[in-house]
Amino acid sequence: YGKNTIKFLRLHKEGKKQFVKEVEVCAHLRLTSPQEYLEGNNSLVIPTDTIKNIVLVLAKKNGISSLEQFAIDICHHFMTTFCQVAYVKAYVQEVPWQRLHEDGVPHIHSFICVPDGIHFCEAEQCRNGPLVVFAGIKDLKLMKTTQSGFEGFYKNEHTTLPERHDRILCGELFCKWSYGECKDFDFNCIWKKIRECILEAFAGPPDCGEYSPSYQKTVNCIQMLVLSRVPQVQIMEVVLNNTFYNVVDMKNLGLTNDKEVLVPVETPYGSCACTLGRK
Amino acid sequence: YGKNTIKFLRLHKEGKKQFVKEVEVCAHLRLTSPQEYLEGNNSLVIPTDTIKNIVLVLAKKNGISSLEQFAIDICHHFMTTFCQVAYVKAYVQEVPWQRLHEDGVPHIHSFICVPDGIHFCEAEQCRNGPLVVFAGIKDLKLMKTTQSGFEGFYKNEHTTLPERHDRILCGELFCKWSYGECKDFDFNCIWKKIRECILEAFAGPPDCGEYSPSYQKTVNCIQMLVLSRVPQVQIMEVVLNNTFYNVVDMKNLGLTNDKEVLVPVETPYGSCACTLGRK
Amino acid sequence: YGKNTIKFLRLHKEGKKQFVKEVEVCAHLRLTSPQEYLEGNNSLVIPTDTIKNIVLVLAKKNGISSLEQFAIDICHHFMTTFCQVAYVKAYVQEVPWQRLHEDGVPHIHSFICVPDGIHFCEAEQCRNGPLVVFAGIKDLKLMKTTQSGFEGFYKNEHTTLPERHDRILCGELFCKWSYGECKDFDFNCIWKKIRECILEAFAGPPDCGEYSPSYQKTVNCIQMLVLSRVPQVQIMEVVLNNTFYNVVDMKNLGLTNDKEVLVPVETPYGSCACTLGRK
Amino acid sequence: YGKNTIKFLRLHKEGKKQFVKEVEVCAHLRLTSPQEYLEGNNSLVIPTDTIKNIVLVLAKKNGISSLEQFAIDICHHFMTTFCQVAYVKAYVQEVPWQRLHEDGVPHIHSFICVPDGIHFCEAEQCRNGPLVVFAGIKDLKLMKTTQSGFEGFYKNEHTTLPERHDRILCGELFCKWSYGECKDFDFNCIWKKIRECILEAFAGPPDCGEYSPSYQKTVNCIQMLVLSRVPQVQIMEVVLNNTFYNVVDMKNLGLTNDKEVLVPVETPYGSCACTLGRK
Repeated sequence: YGKNTIKFLRLHKEGKKQFVKEVEVCAHLRLTSPQEYLEGNNSLVIPTDTIKNIVLVLAKKNGISSLEQFAIDICHHFMTTFCQVAYVKAYVQEVPWQRLHEDGVPHIHSFICVPDGIHFCEAEQCRNGPLVVFAGIKDLKLMKTTQSGFEGFYKNEHTTLPERHDRILCGELFCKWSYGECKDFDFNCIWKKIRECILEAFAGPPDCGEYSPSYQKTVNCIQMLVLSRVPQVQIMEVVLNNTFYNVVDMKNLGLTNDKEVLVPVETPYGSCACTLGRK
Repeated sequence: YGKNTIKFLRLHKEGKKQFVKEVEVCAHLRLTSPQEYLEGNNSLVIPTDTIKNIVLVLAKKNGISSLEQFAIDICHHFMTTFCQVAYVKAYVQEVPWQRLHEDGVPHIHSFICVPDGIHFCEAEQCRNGPLVVFAGIKDLKLMKTTQSGFEGFYKNEHTTLPERHDRILCGELFCKWSYGECKDFDFNCIWKKIRECILEAFAGPPDCGEYSPSYQKTVNCIQMLVLSRVPQVQIMEVVLNNTFYNVVDMKNLGLTNDKEVLVPVETPYGSCACTLGRK
Repeated sequence: YGKNTIKFLRLHKEGKKQFVKEVEVCAHLRLTSPQEYLEGNNSLVIPTDTIKNIVLVLAKKNGISSLEQFAIDICHHFMTTFCQVAYVKAYVQEVPWQRLHEDGVPHIHSFICVPDGIHFCEAEQCRNGPLVVFAGIKDLKLMKTTQSGFEGFYKNEHTTLPERHDRILCGELFCKWSYGECKDFDFNCIWKKIRECILEAFAGPPDCGEYSPSYQKTVNCIQMLVLSRVPQVQIMEVVLNNTFYNVVDMKNLGLTNDKEVLVPVETPYGSCACTLGRK
Repeated sequence: YGKNTIKFLRLHKEGKKQFVKEVEVCAHLRLTSPQEYLEGNNSLVIPTDTIKNIVLVLAKKNGISSLEQFAIDICHHFMTTFCQVAYVKAYVQEVPWQRLHEDGVPHIHSFICVPDGIHFCEAEQCRNGPLVVFAGIKDLKLMKTTQSGFEGFYKNEHTTLPERHDRILCGELFCKWSYGECKDFDFNCIWKKIRECILEAFAGPPDCGEYSPSYQKTVNCIQMLVLSRVPQVQIMEVVLNNTFYNVVDMKNLGLTNDKEVLVPVETPYGSCACTLGRK
């Protein structure tokens, strides 16, 4: 199969107010015949350059009301236009431009890039199969400075880790969920709701938090809350890339360090991942 | 000279509420004698490991009320403790953790990383010289979708660029300013004020913006506004790394593209820089 | 499942001659029960820290005769030691240190890092299943300045790419192959032989090269040559991330550019991938 | 001032044999008047796009016999063509393509990228001043597995580092030297000679090496050898970014680790730098 990445900006105006979407689109195609590989026969090959043109034309004609709708448009176009396409996947990712505000007043045409969790989506389809839509958030970095521990784990002669009931929980989240064969969802609204669920499940109640016995359990809490609150989500995958911090031992320096100064442990680093669906 | 980078977390509590600073500190030292280079005599060398210990001990003892104060503390410690140090510079940079909010309620111990412009600072001192403090913001990405052009430039036989009176202005800002021999500034408050000035000068009034005839003029507007509004700033350096976008020519595709779809031009890319002080 | 990355150096001596391997190991584990996710019960969880200790102990005891043997050792250890492990995968990647030579004389203990294609491997096993070994090369950047074209491709109203019979072929290769249930292979020797096959298939005969009608066909040539020359390889996956170059149009500058000056086209960029096995 | 980066490929043929240079050029210009900053008057501004055209035209017309000569050509062009240019600096860096060999036979048109130290250079000139040329090597990673220590350093209450007489010496070198107002040097030949000196001074004799009492002393040895062997070099700056490795303590795991297994220490990391000239 082949893969192509295109970056572009889509502007539109409502009166004098300007709107901007900057996206990166990656289109994967697999053809019905691999003759270009086996025989060097290019007659069915759709060049990267043509794919780029199609994506830009679709952006021009349809606009980008949501990343998900745009990914659906791309899949639909390739499936209906090219009978040699056996499979298409469109991945769309957004550059997180947010409208600038001055003293609370939104600016008519100025934007700032705020990368606190990147919205992405995927639509994919096999010929004669359903069009399936996924969405997700990545590069979302979160930290809890207390209410986290790791105890009661398996021990043997290679164990040197002490049990801890008050450690830092910090990591980078990657979440991806399936909407199944969705129809007319308000994708932007659902995405925002899911992002809020993720933050709430990670952090717990604002006044006291909620104890996390492991990274794994926190992953599960996120999945459980999203599946319970957002009926459109069918399956949810969560990967948490952990950053560990060690309390610095300052005894040799004549000081008591009561979890005040910690250093990141760069190796080993770990991640835990889980995919959870509905029964 | 030698340079050392240390990353760590500093936590503190006020009642049950937790606060966190994650910083990267880089300490530069130059010794009065280069004998370790010329003769392999290490007797004056302060090992990287010792520098790390000192930085962590200062963080433990003093806390990090502001990046600038912490950089000043480090300079002060090296100058007063080691008579073999001829010059010291402490660079401190922050990981932009922000307190999480749930429905507007601040969370007691949970944070999200929001890298929309990184706060950094520097303090430096030569033996028998003044301690000078700089602060700055970097990795601040801004865009104006209109009210920007580039016309009337120098032309010769190598010129192919057309004049444009309605282009995209987009780039990444690096700003660094000097506070001179500062005394008792509220560094955090001043930094926030300067950040607001930068955004305001870049964007112009929220309802109409302000026309920018070039990246260079926008750089100058930022400097002028900061110097006029913030008396503590002595000199300000601004570097704007430009991202250019071209309107896609869709004539061959049978469409008119009225600045709706644009692609980034990755090469050549440029930057403009200027340093401006008070008379 | 969980994933853990460990970086380390393994030294050994033969007389006064020193040998070094620097590797990055990533161990993936899936347990028979997900109770740590669902219930927060950690009693079967093997901490990242323990996994690190095990990998380092294996390196100490067994050495690293080849990356592949080390990956096999890791899989074997986890499967035989922990009955709660349902699946294990060990990924091992090498930092490409090469012995320094001075006027052709090999140095006894000095090395230079030469990243012209990175050796990696994977061993994986499900409980009660076979142990399967993969090896590969990544980050291998190659270029042909002629004997490459792209013609006869599919055309429609979105096609703007001209046909070219003398373009640059340039890209970054990722190759991964399976040895099946291997026994006593000389993994290092086979890997070198496969690397030579890849270079030969990409470049063609040294005196004239071989015409490539597409990136896809070059991918296939690599696979065909490796499968025909190296009987230990069962299946081979090749991904070629293309870098495109355009001949600069210098007509407006009064010059004829006969494929002498070219600029990289950064977007769109593409890749083509294919997996080929034996019948 | 303004800065512009351009990447391109320059091909040429001798008979059927093809040659390739891929370079990244960064041109810095400062104009005699800052009126584009202060007044928004662009009449003297040379657009990025024009600078790109000039660099490409020079590459087409002159070829790239050496990076240094090409940087000189660029400076010369801007100084003689534009009277509004007060200062010009051209930085040129090479992508390290090497000709492929099959069984020792050089290939006529195929290349492999081998980044084991990147060649770069700079030429700079102020109006009415001399044209000065620098060259250098960067991203050169070297390691000695023995014959290195660090002892006799300064100690106080913050010292926790033990003395070591047999540690790993590993780091990434950046070297930059000045040729002064050079005339007709064979820049490629001198660069290769200097690279060999750097490797020799780092490693010592191939059969036994040479003991290094510190990173600083190794930096100095490199400078001394280059200055003594290469008369064209006026001044040499060397920066060594250190990678530290710790011998893993395996006592708790019941093993003796005789400098066989080491882990990289990622923080703190340090660097030492020195500039040395002739008397």
